[in-house]
Amino acid sequence: MGRGRMSHAQDQQLERLTFFSDAVFAIAITLLVIEIHVPHPEANTDEAWIQALVDLIPHFAGFILSFFVIGALWAAHHRIFGLLRHYDPSIVWPNLVLLMAVAFMPFSSSLMSTHSTERVPEMFYAFTLLMAGLIQHWVVKRALRAPFLRDDVTDDMIAMARRRSLAMPCMAVVAGVLAYWWPGPSNLPLVLTPVAVMLFARMRKAPPATVTS
Amino acid sequence: MGRGRMSHAQDQQLERLTFFSDAVFAIAITLLVIEIHVPHPEANTDEAWIQALVDLIPHFAGFILSFFVIGALWAAHHRIFGLLRHYDPSIVWPNLVLLMAVAFMPFSSSLMSTHSTERVPEMFYAFTLLMAGLIQHWVVKRALRAPFLRDDVTDDMIAMARRRSLAMPCMAVVAGVLAYWWPGPSNLPLVLTPVAVMLFARMRKAPPATVTS
Amino acid sequence: MGRGRMSHAQDQQLERLTFFSDAVFAIAITLLVIEIHVPHPEANTDEAWIQALVDLIPHFAGFILSFFVIGALWAAHHRIFGLLRHYDPSIVWPNLVLLMAVAFMPFSSSLMSTHSTERVPEMFYAFTLLMAGLIQHWVVKRALRAPFLRDDVTDDMIAMARRRSLAMPCMAVVAGVLAYWWPGPSNLPLVLTPVAVMLFARMRKAPPATVTS
Amino acid sequence: MGRGRMSHAQDQQLERLTFFSDAVFAIAITLLVIEIHVPHPEANTDEAWIQALVDLIPHFAGFILSFFVIGALWAAHHRIFGLLRHYDPSIVWPNLVLLMAVAFMPFSSSLMSTHSTERVPEMFYAFTLLMAGLIQHWVVKRALRAPFLRDDVTDDMIAMARRRSLAMPCMAVVAGVLAYWWPGPSNLPLVLTPVAVMLFARMRKAPPATVTS
Repeated sequence: MGRGRMSHAQDQQLERLTFFSDAVFAIAITLLVIEIHVPHPEANTDEAWIQALVDLIPHFAGFILSFFVIGALWAAHHRIFGLLRHYDPSIVWPNLVLLMAVAFMPFSSSLMSTHSTERVPEMFYAFTLLMAGLIQHWVVKRALRAPFLRDDVTDDMIAMARRRSLAMPCMAVVAGVLAYWWPGPSNLPLVLTPVAVMLFARMRKAPPATVTS
Repeated sequence: MGRGRMSHAQDQQLERLTFFSDAVFAIAITLLVIEIHVPHPEANTDEAWIQALVDLIPHFAGFILSFFVIGALWAAHHRIFGLLRHYDPSIVWPNLVLLMAVAFMPFSSSLMSTHSTERVPEMFYAFTLLMAGLIQHWVVKRALRAPFLRDDVTDDMIAMARRRSLAMPCMAVVAGVLAYWWPGPSNLPLVLTPVAVMLFARMRKAPPATVTS
Repeated sequence: MGRGRMSHAQDQQLERLTFFSDAVFAIAITLLVIEIHVPHPEANTDEAWIQALVDLIPHFAGFILSFFVIGALWAAHHRIFGLLRHYDPSIVWPNLVLLMAVAFMPFSSSLMSTHSTERVPEMFYAFTLLMAGLIQHWVVKRALRAPFLRDDVTDDMIAMARRRSLAMPCMAVVAGVLAYWWPGPSNLPLVLTPVAVMLFARMRKAPPATVTS
Repeated sequence: MGRGRMSHAQDQQLERLTFFSDAVFAIAITLLVIEIHVPHPEANTDEAWIQALVDLIPHFAGFILSFFVIGALWAAHHRIFGLLRHYDPSIVWPNLVLLMAVAFMPFSSSLMSTHSTERVPEMFYAFTLLMAGLIQHWVVKRALRAPFLRDDVTDDMIAMARRRSLAMPCMAVVAGVLAYWWPGPSNLPLVLTPVAVMLFARMRKAPPATVTS
């Protein structure tokens, strides 16, 4: 009884934690755009305007890339917390650390877009992704533990989630190393991160056969 | 049993997906205002101030227009996801692409307002609306599919939702073409987009007679 | 049956509408701060710094005032939508118009704070509050209608809510008229708006005796 | 019956209040990053870039510090409102005052980071934390009162929550006093605030033995 009531209250707390996390993800992902500034070409000809928009392409590309990176982090968070039934209060602070890495992304994304062929900004961007990915892996390991999981969550699903959370740190290392020689194009592997995550997501659906309690 | 539990968890996931989407819509729609900058007229006379505010009218008009455009996209999203009972994980990424188009709007809206009589910025704005509209049409088609719908959703309602989601892309094409000759006034057809959507909304209520399972 | 299912779906839609509204209120209220810019005094002495902070007092005062104005609008929205049981789809667009007025506040608040003794900016601020208040009164009248109300909502409560929603427009008119002669201090009556709303809130609790329907 | 219906409606209102609060916390915590501006070093050498990033360290440190301060305020809010079962309408305005202090943090954090060795900005920052902490203590005292608490909330838990809410004001006083002599390093005690809160959180779990109604 006291148990049931406690659980219900804990459910609400879990909901509020995921809610707060969603809000931070949503704000960080939407703030990416405010780093793209409206151009003011000197001549008001069509050619000058088209050139001004062409000059913004690195910013557009950076916006799209970082949108999908934060989107992938959110989708992973969404999936992981969807496996939880109860609320482990000790997850609050690791989760805040993850949100801090996400909230920092508008800065590192803007740094990378503004100086899209410089070695240090590109490596710094890859480094922040590496940190975000590793923190997420840590949160996954902390969150997906026995007493807090939904009944239908199998060991396979947990192992899958852990492995999958290593996709982004790996891609970030590749991008960071490539940035030493080819800053700019070095970000191309990151484009594949969501694809990698989706591939894993597909793989996940396969084994819903054995259900452990 | 396992089924029911699964469904319940999926409902929560659907709720979280719509929640995250709502947050991105809300942030993008509210960020529109930060592109309107406070004027600092040289003279502090009433006349100079009134002139300064009159000079801002294109920005006010752009704010109102883009507010209703994003509002219409949100209202459509609200209505479409309200027809779903279950959660199709494969909708996550198309939905993120739609949110990216929405999150980009504060930039294209600011570009359009700042250069309200230039051909290229106006056409660029119309182009981003076209993209947002087409992506939404794609999401509607992907989301409104058999096993995920509520029991009381009829085929008519689905057909209606699909047709309705073509209203904005059509208006965007009209505005984009007009912008070639009359940049600025070319946006007037867009003002009618919410009206068109509302008309469709009225039409929808008519046939709740036959209910398919 | 079909009825019950419909109602449940409508409840979710109502929840999502209030949620989206809450998010817009929350973003607008938090964006107020980004108009206060960090000062860079020429001398790095304590005196120069204290002077720099003293110079910001109009901005701090404007932040606090607008925070309570948006807070009062939110509290009213919170209370009004708390009286609803069902979801009237026709409220979506009036509600969006109200949210537009709220989302516009960071601009008019910044205009008012930056030029805190100029007649036109102060009157413009009062005018935007008047518009926001009147739109809210319109939303209250549209929302609080028979088939959508909770069973325990009395006619008295509706009449109260309508009357209460006139408090802010009245205060805005007073502030706007005063701003003609005393721009700046003219905003003082607005400080009393939340107090007025709270007074009405106290009055409301009195008659929960007779329950209609 | 009327009672039960009332309670259900009140629950929804409580949910909406915590939701709105969460959104303000999330926006304020994410806005911290927009005060870190992308550097534009004159030379495009690796050394110049590394130096540019090193120069940003006070901003990074300020971002992390303020992220954890707002995070600690949110975690406390999360915990306190998790103890409530019902909704006390009189908590709306004290809660708004707390949210105002939170929404103000991006400014004071930016002021502190931009002038990280100046006495007045550092003391101003500590002062805003002191205010936020004291307001939170006031909200805790107002919120955790008899008829609104969950059944399983003991007197010990309330006393704990009250004492815990004094941790931040105490740390802020220490930091503010230290800032007189060592502006900058004076913020180090604040780093320990979340640790202190976590220690209290650990202590809290001990006495779930006696349950008062």
